[in-house]
Amino acid sequence: MTQRHTEACPIAHSLNIIGDRWTLLIVREAFGGISRFSDFHKRTGIAKNLLTDRLALLVQEGVFEKSDIGERGVRYAYHLTESGRALLPVMVALHMWGNENLFGDGEEPVLLVDRTTGEPIQSMAMLTSSGASVLPENIRRRPGPGAPALKTGD
Amino acid sequence: MTQRHTEACPIAHSLNIIGDRWTLLIVREAFGGISRFSDFHKRTGIAKNLLTDRLALLVQEGVFEKSDIGERGVRYAYHLTESGRALLPVMVALHMWGNENLFGDGEEPVLLVDRTTGEPIQSMAMLTSSGASVLPENIRRRPGPGAPALKTGD
Repeated sequence: MTQRHTEACPIAHSLNIIGDRWTLLIVREAFGGISRFSDFHKRTGIAKNLLTDRLALLVQEGVFEKSDIGERGVRYAYHLTESGRALLPVMVALHMWGNENLFGDGEEPVLLVDRTTGEPIQSMAMLTSSGASVLPENIRRRPGPGAPALKTGD
Repeated sequence: MTQRHTEACPIAHSLNIIGDRWTLLIVREAFGGISRFSDFHKRTGIAKNLLTDRLALLVQEGVFEKSDIGERGVRYAYHLTESGRALLPVMVALHMWGNENLFGDGEEPVLLVDRTTGEPIQSMAMLTSSGASVLPENIRRRPGPGAPALKTGD
């Protein structure tokens, strides 16, 4: 098994779930409406044993929920939970980075657009609770309320 | 070696570079100002052989640039390129997802804040070229100018 990060960092913990070659492709398909094992397999090309493992972990971690949709006999569907749907900004950010940095302007294989206007998504803004947009160079990491040192009173 | 995605999808191609347990922790440290092999090793806990492999790939793919900073003898520093720094929205999105979905309100080990105001980053907005914010439910995937079918004139 792959080593599990225990470091108190949300990125490290996220990577325990989505930090591999395939998981975000499964999630991509789920955002596109795919819900069945055989369809995830066909559309991503992932090996079946790996898909079984990844879906089990995603269900365990609350990213997908599994339900029996068999009318005669058992057949499962996998749907994104609220936590799974919350991965959308991660997907969009990765999509845009790949287009801009691995394909380049005019070579994008897939675009993300607003279906109401047809306009492509061009950027992402990071906002504070007051709605202010934060410049990349002004972002800093700070210990949060669950930081280990704070929790033990150090 | 891990299988390389060839599918014409920016997410799949991005995963060829950052789709593993460790790479985004190396990138996280680089955003924090770390540039030396020994420091990446110490701060992430990644095995040295894996770190060597990942840094070589990141340099090859244009995410990091490697420079000799040795005064007497060879010593390398690894810095994010413009393409590497463009990973910031991916890092922020993953950080926020982890905090909200794996730790939860009041348990966040690390927060991202605007250093000019101290306010934590709370959300990310997806914007079109006209500056309009796109609702998650309105995002659609569309073939881009580099889509295989379009390129071959089908």
